[in-house]
Amino acid sequence: MARVVTNTIRTKLETCEALGRLGVATVHEAQGRTGLLATRLRPIQDGARIGGNALTCEVAPGDNWMIHVVLEQAKPGDILVVTPTSPCDDGYFGDLLATSAMARGVRGLVIDAGVRDVADLRQMGFPVWSKCVSAQGTVKETPANVQVPIMCAGTLVNPGDVIVADDDGVCVVANDNADEVLEKALKREAAEEEKRGRFANGELGLDIYNMRARLQQKGLTYE
Amino acid sequence: MARVVTNTIRTKLETCEALGRLGVATVHEAQGRTGLLATRLRPIQDGARIGGNALTCEVAPGDNWMIHVVLEQAKPGDILVVTPTSPCDDGYFGDLLATSAMARGVRGLVIDAGVRDVADLRQMGFPVWSKCVSAQGTVKETPANVQVPIMCAGTLVNPGDVIVADDDGVCVVANDNADEVLEKALKREAAEEEKRGRFANGELGLDIYNMRARLQQKGLTYE
Amino acid sequence: MARVVTNTIRTKLETCEALGRLGVATVHEAQGRTGLLATRLRPIQDGARIGGNALTCEVAPGDNWMIHVVLEQAKPGDILVVTPTSPCDDGYFGDLLATSAMARGVRGLVIDAGVRDVADLRQMGFPVWSKCVSAQGTVKETPANVQVPIMCAGTLVNPGDVIVADDDGVCVVANDNADEVLEKALKREAAEEEKRGRFANGELGLDIYNMRARLQQKGLTYE
Amino acid sequence: MARVVTNTIRTKLETCEALGRLGVATVHEAQGRTGLLATRLRPIQDGARIGGNALTCEVAPGDNWMIHVVLEQAKPGDILVVTPTSPCDDGYFGDLLATSAMARGVRGLVIDAGVRDVADLRQMGFPVWSKCVSAQGTVKETPANVQVPIMCAGTLVNPGDVIVADDDGVCVVANDNADEVLEKALKREAAEEEKRGRFANGELGLDIYNMRARLQQKGLTYE
Amino acid sequence: MARVVTNTIRTKLETCEALGRLGVATVHEAQGRTGLLATRLRPIQDGARIGGNALTCEVAPGDNWMIHVVLEQAKPGDILVVTPTSPCDDGYFGDLLATSAMARGVRGLVIDAGVRDVADLRQMGFPVWSKCVSAQGTVKETPANVQVPIMCAGTLVNPGDVIVADDDGVCVVANDNADEVLEKALKREAAEEEKRGRFANGELGLDIYNMRARLQQKGLTYE
Amino acid sequence: MARVVTNTIRTKLETCEALGRLGVATVHEAQGRTGLLATRLRPIQDGARIGGNALTCEVAPGDNWMIHVVLEQAKPGDILVVTPTSPCDDGYFGDLLATSAMARGVRGLVIDAGVRDVADLRQMGFPVWSKCVSAQGTVKETPANVQVPIMCAGTLVNPGDVIVADDDGVCVVANDNADEVLEKALKREAAEEEKRGRFANGELGLDIYNMRARLQQKGLTYE
Repeated sequence: MARVVTNTIRTKLETCEALGRLGVATVHEAQGRTGLLATRLRPIQDGARIGGNALTCEVAPGDNWMIHVVLEQAKPGDILVVTPTSPCDDGYFGDLLATSAMARGVRGLVIDAGVRDVADLRQMGFPVWSKCVSAQGTVKETPANVQVPIMCAGTLVNPGDVIVADDDGVCVVANDNADEVLEKALKREAAEEEKRGRFANGELGLDIYNMRARLQQKGLTYE
Repeated sequence: MARVVTNTIRTKLETCEALGRLGVATVHEAQGRTGLLATRLRPIQDGARIGGNALTCEVAPGDNWMIHVVLEQAKPGDILVVTPTSPCDDGYFGDLLATSAMARGVRGLVIDAGVRDVADLRQMGFPVWSKCVSAQGTVKETPANVQVPIMCAGTLVNPGDVIVADDDGVCVVANDNADEVLEKALKREAAEEEKRGRFANGELGLDIYNMRARLQQKGLTYE
Repeated sequence: MARVVTNTIRTKLETCEALGRLGVATVHEAQGRTGLLATRLRPIQDGARIGGNALTCEVAPGDNWMIHVVLEQAKPGDILVVTPTSPCDDGYFGDLLATSAMARGVRGLVIDAGVRDVADLRQMGFPVWSKCVSAQGTVKETPANVQVPIMCAGTLVNPGDVIVADDDGVCVVANDNADEVLEKALKREAAEEEKRGRFANGELGLDIYNMRARLQQKGLTYE
Repeated sequence: MARVVTNTIRTKLETCEALGRLGVATVHEAQGRTGLLATRLRPIQDGARIGGNALTCEVAPGDNWMIHVVLEQAKPGDILVVTPTSPCDDGYFGDLLATSAMARGVRGLVIDAGVRDVADLRQMGFPVWSKCVSAQGTVKETPANVQVPIMCAGTLVNPGDVIVADDDGVCVVANDNADEVLEKALKREAAEEEKRGRFANGELGLDIYNMRARLQQKGLTYE
Repeated sequence: MARVVTNTIRTKLETCEALGRLGVATVHEAQGRTGLLATRLRPIQDGARIGGNALTCEVAPGDNWMIHVVLEQAKPGDILVVTPTSPCDDGYFGDLLATSAMARGVRGLVIDAGVRDVADLRQMGFPVWSKCVSAQGTVKETPANVQVPIMCAGTLVNPGDVIVADDDGVCVVANDNADEVLEKALKREAAEEEKRGRFANGELGLDIYNMRARLQQKGLTYE
Repeated sequence: MARVVTNTIRTKLETCEALGRLGVATVHEAQGRTGLLATRLRPIQDGARIGGNALTCEVAPGDNWMIHVVLEQAKPGDILVVTPTSPCDDGYFGDLLATSAMARGVRGLVIDAGVRDVADLRQMGFPVWSKCVSAQGTVKETPANVQVPIMCAGTLVNPGDVIVADDDGVCVVANDNADEVLEKALKREAAEEEKRGRFANGELGLDIYNMRARLQQKGLTYE
């Protein structure tokens, strides 16, 4: 009873890319500290920072069949988001699938499971955020759902939501909030830029944020 | 009642090296998805890829005495495989032992425990796959077995089996299967090379592997 | 009832720096294999090696308020040591706090919790040893103690103790032992240097350390 | 910007109770193997089996304030479902809150965090499924959302969804699927009852489910 | 290419049962502290203590098909030992399979994965040692090997080896060592019985085992 | 250079017992939410609740020799607290040592490592809080310190501090705070008793603790 949904919405790529440039920490703050995927997802490379549309894919444990199915649904600017239907550390994705994904315009992979051929993936410049690295192969026996809402690393991801991923992890922004979150994130970044200069000059957060009175009121004492 | 076995077999070095060049993911597939060590073993460096003969060594928890013993048994092209007799995260191996191992022709270390001096080990170019990094020192009080079959990270390793290790992890090939696995791995690599070109041209796995009919038969539907 | 202690002692910076140059493994050995923080603290960068005075800071779970408070107490050469009052993986520290810390002369951060903006932290050259990376933001609601003795990653750290941190992890040396430990560590390093040459020439630890008789007495046999 | 939603729907209690009697494994199967909360949630008691309406509550890490808020929203037959906004193991709930919850008709607690006073909770007969047991106390400083959709142990829970919990763990059934799932679960139970007798007589699953031909076709051989 | 081996040896049941009565700790010591399965395998019940022949079964991740296959190979006195070909926490085994296993004379289950229906399993008196409890269902798509040597929880188990399991965990004794280990274990138990009386009278291990001189020689001092 | 300190102080037994009766959660609260040992220490039995003097013992990893040494230092009412010098899961303690400990008046064991013979320990009524259960045996080769301040499960324990342990875990109270903490804990218990009645009558914490105004001020809204 598995299904592939083909008529999914997508967020404008320029919005995705603008959110990607701002990065996970800023975007996560801008949407009220929500949308973060669990910290067990770590980049296999340093320094990648991307934004794109979620292309969602369930897989059975130990079975990567659906990754072949989902790639047919890919559009340029998508980020593939894969979640096993029960926890699994196998190596679902390697250099051949990365070659296919890049040929279809996919910008990267977020997977709550393992990947392999990581030396090749790094060399190809295909960024990956995964739960682990494992050479353990998978079978192609059990269908699962493609381009449906999924839970990935403890967070809900809908097809066409914006995925932002960098060295801090992975964050998802709902499709219908993307513009509002972008606006807030840009404001936040500007505010931080101003504060960065003051911090660099040795000013303290205690003064920049006027914290002293409230700390005293909460009972903090100095000896 | 610990013992050192001195008359162990070894696999031809050119076979070891050919398997090493193919890498863990390919070799693991070529031998029917067996022989992988647990994914908790991770490289302390990026980009190393080696093949060699397993030089096996048990150690007591918190005790690295036997590593001195096993190095006398080393031959050029060996890869040292160390397993504690009960789980332990201590730092069993550092730059002095690495200096000794390199002087004896050992190509690298696989250890289901901790190592230390990792900055030095990286600089020396001595590759290590370990469970963790820990500066915790060890004692020299309790003998254990050397060059006997051991369980390392959940997998059986015999002296003279081939160890293949790269950024994907560690795989072992039994001595008497090594030539057969090498042959299969070379075929697999050639087949992948051909497919890589098709994937790069945008062809889908669905078509390359003729998956559509079987997916339909298993009940996959498109909406 | 939280408090900030302002009259804390510090160790001479040249002692801190000399210990820092020797590194975690050597210092940990020199003080009798004590003082190591749990191995869950890992560097977010490769190759940093620092020594400095512990600037200690408790934080409530999910609350980084006190980091603003502690930075007012910083002196050049300090290393900030942060511990949550119950285990927490949130991202307590990012590029703004790092800017502030650097402006106050702080050399690095040791935290038994998460950090974020790690790409920026690496680029700024501000070294961090943390339990994890997480973009999860924190609040500023609950005071905690600053510059008091704290438990960090299972080990007692007093303000003004020496923190040594490198790719092997983090070690603490009590303020009143620092000179003695430094002396022992320098001797140890010299002794290792001499042995390194012998190992490099292919001599075995069995002979360098005269282990053969004791191994035989403990029942080790050769087959 | 935290809020309490007061106008939430609930599922009929007889449906909840019927699902509760069937138990987690049967209900989870009946709804297509979905809705299971992560296995880190374990009962603190043996033998409890309950069904009821989800009463949902976010809490800040280390802060149990909202549990007081949510209990005002409780109706008889509710099961309290608590999730921290970032992972936390503190002891959020003890015998006083259990006394309050029981007085309000709450049937049990599901919490992706810690609880305490577990000896009392067992004696009171108030069943709990938690991530851990911890005496670590919490503060009351930071509001969070009450009776909104939450992610608990990796799964989406809406107020008024049906919670089923027993020794196997915790499962959630969406409010608008409850009757359909109940019907399927009852059918499944009846079918299993029939098969149980055949298994008890020594018949094999190979024959009961006609597996032999398909196994042969998949290449299984006997030696 | 999966296979079922039908001509496997078994150990005499009276030997199995005698080892079972002695328990895991005694048997593990008697065979030189080997054969213990990883401590992640825990009993779902208190107080069970069994011995029997290993009936071995590989399963694919998330797929319990082979458990139906292996039960045809069961003989009275067997203990089913199940290992997934890559790590998996799903609930492979519940009350129907337990009914079948009991009808075939199987004494218990050891599984490096999850089980479900644990309330029923306890009530039926079918003892289980598992990695976790999970209601997550499994499919029947992928064959694997039955009655071959397997790695279970880090230890090699051959069909017909003796499995001993109790509240301390699980231990395996090789078929061809069983009589010798039994003899040693009986001697050990007798020796312990004698010492138990002396300990109960307040005598110290320091004196019973003559440890004082050796402690002094190793440098232990009293202040 | 290991040592046994013989002239350690102890807390009055009636204070220990009074704290024991109050239990871990109450005592931990009464001393300002400090002193809790990490939650990885779990009871092997249900329903035990004890208080006594800490009898402290370091052990080398995989080596239980010092437990024999420390038992000579035991006095009636002591609780044995054991910590390995590096993390270890072996089974350090079983029924013989428990027999010895009970004969010397020891009330229970707290150990940041494994124990075995747990069925016997439960039957003997010797309560244990441990990190895990493991039948893995230990050697007697390496001395360590006895009756010195130790770190156990992340917390500092001095000889003669009060250990309180129950189903919620383990808490330590410093010797020189014991009377003050007891007094506060008794007050806390009395205050809770009064509130328990109000909660049982259906009164809400919101009203009992006057939380409504402060919640509103922090921005909580009702929809």
